[in-house]
Amino acid sequence: MSGTGRKPASDTAAGGNDTLGKRPFKRSRSHFADRITADGRDGWPVAAGRYRLVVSRACPWASRALISRRLLGLEDALSLAVTDPIQDDRSWRFTLDPDDRDPVLGIRYLSEAYDARETGYPGGVSVPAIVDVPSGQLVTNDYQQLTLDLATEWTALHRPGAPDLYPEAWRDEIDAVMEGIYRDVNNGVYRAGFASSQRAYEEAYRDVFRRLEETSGRLADRRYLVGDSITEADIRLFTTLVRFDAVYHGHFKCNRRKLSEDPVLWAYARDLYQTPGFGDTVDFDHIKRHYYEVHTGINPTGIVPLGPDLGGWLTPHHRQELGGSPFGKGTAPGPLPEGEEVAAAGRP
Amino acid sequence: MSGTGRKPASDTAAGGNDTLGKRPFKRSRSHFADRITADGRDGWPVAAGRYRLVVSRACPWASRALISRRLLGLEDALSLAVTDPIQDDRSWRFTLDPDDRDPVLGIRYLSEAYDARETGYPGGVSVPAIVDVPSGQLVTNDYQQLTLDLATEWTALHRPGAPDLYPEAWRDEIDAVMEGIYRDVNNGVYRAGFASSQRAYEEAYRDVFRRLEETSGRLADRRYLVGDSITEADIRLFTTLVRFDAVYHGHFKCNRRKLSEDPVLWAYARDLYQTPGFGDTVDFDHIKRHYYEVHTGINPTGIVPLGPDLGGWLTPHHRQELGGSPFGKGTAPGPLPEGEEVAAAGRP
Repeated sequence: MSGTGRKPASDTAAGGNDTLGKRPFKRSRSHFADRITADGRDGWPVAAGRYRLVVSRACPWASRALISRRLLGLEDALSLAVTDPIQDDRSWRFTLDPDDRDPVLGIRYLSEAYDARETGYPGGVSVPAIVDVPSGQLVTNDYQQLTLDLATEWTALHRPGAPDLYPEAWRDEIDAVMEGIYRDVNNGVYRAGFASSQRAYEEAYRDVFRRLEETSGRLADRRYLVGDSITEADIRLFTTLVRFDAVYHGHFKCNRRKLSEDPVLWAYARDLYQTPGFGDTVDFDHIKRHYYEVHTGINPTGIVPLGPDLGGWLTPHHRQELGGSPFGKGTAPGPLPEGEEVAAAGRP
Repeated sequence: MSGTGRKPASDTAAGGNDTLGKRPFKRSRSHFADRITADGRDGWPVAAGRYRLVVSRACPWASRALISRRLLGLEDALSLAVTDPIQDDRSWRFTLDPDDRDPVLGIRYLSEAYDARETGYPGGVSVPAIVDVPSGQLVTNDYQQLTLDLATEWTALHRPGAPDLYPEAWRDEIDAVMEGIYRDVNNGVYRAGFASSQRAYEEAYRDVFRRLEETSGRLADRRYLVGDSITEADIRLFTTLVRFDAVYHGHFKCNRRKLSEDPVLWAYARDLYQTPGFGDTVDFDHIKRHYYEVHTGINPTGIVPLGPDLGGWLTPHHRQELGGSPFGKGTAPGPLPEGEEVAAAGRP
């Protein structure tokens, strides 16, 4: 998740500026791990219109939920709040909205939903978060479970033709693939970028590229990571790959090569980017400004690079020649809901 | 030149950490601009064995002199001192030598030669520098003039077959090309990297890539920048290009694309790199450690990236098909003098 303590505001990693202290970077587990389920066993039953998903488009963990919600057609059932990519000393805020307030929750800071749930909670404030609209309380910030529940518990509200993003027959393989990608890639880039010693950095860097190279080999002759269609595993790899050249390559020093220098991974990432529900949720402007402006511990000037040239994301990828079908027996999602379009400035 | 005030030690740019203050980055002019000439009109006649060239292999301005000296065969006439790539609070130092002293000059810091020349000189200490061995005095740190004088004033001491690096017939064109490359590329990357505002950075970034794109067009169908052979203009462009992907792309945020993503410039740079006198003077280890460890104002962690993969520098470039001859009517330089080999760790 993209989390920060209330003060000081910092970055998309739990622990904030502490990550540059002496201890190795370690991602916090989610404190609020209630689940929204079909049977409501945690007290939070799936219900259309009851919950609000809060994301930053900068954050790879929150972007998983953005993509899942789109692919599954949950836009009407689960409304969306998008935070400013730049946190202040009270963390994620709704300064992109009129009067700097989320129009549905009526709050200025996501932390207000945390406070409504648990008075005096001392931990970090992170996205993605789901908030119960009637009570204004945070339900969950469990970035690892949240999208799995959208795929498997929210089925009654899925659109007709929604893909199965976590098919039972493939779960063991999906889980195994995701575990390695999480440790070495999704979180590996953060371990590299927030390393406080040369040794810790080098270890993380090697993990990142070892796993990317293995993954590149796996994807050389298959269109998707597991099975013949898009699954949760592809969503989780994509949200790191789409940020790779824009921020992780330079800002996090993951610079053995750019994504665009690996022909297989680059074509794979473009294929997904060009699939409805993926690229149409990506805001490169939010991504770049967040990382480069917020992480003053590694970019003290706050200057945001103009590069890289992002034009390549829309070039042909030819991955359809490998077979497979993006949505399995399902169909592509429709157009973006009004008001959720990403501003042109954020597009390549 | 690569200069620093005595305190605090900082970077390869005159002005040191001041460059991250409010004023736009401005490179200082050389204070010691005496010339060593054939006629000795400034009191410093060309003479074999009298002078010592002090460089850092990290520094692009000093590396010009390293290359010129090699191409012209001045190794025996003009001896070489190589500083530690990491300055301390007294700036460039001879900590790579036994007892941390330059064995010829007998000094521990280059600043001692400055002091011998001018008591209480308050300015920065920069490389390249030429020191008069008998008196221990600094003669010049004029990085713009120094290599031109090696090419045109030191001719009596050139090796047989030395190329003409600044041919009279081409000087106007060489000067014009070098002026644009200096402003927008050699110094442009520093203006981008040391910019203290987003606006100053963006202006410099645009200058860098506008000039590189123009230069790429110029080199598409000609092997060298001016005429049919290597000139001073090629040397000056090379010393920036060879550092581009290793440091300027990430550290200085010149990241529209890597050098290796411009097929023309990348082949041109590899052609020179593989020419005796160019690549054999390059130490990527010194280069990367210097920039990333010294510039704490833009890389406060001091972590040195493991990337990029440098293996490509030795791949075929096919530029010989464009015609031209690297040394004109001259010949290639011989092998490196003993003791001047660059350690294997610094080679791709």
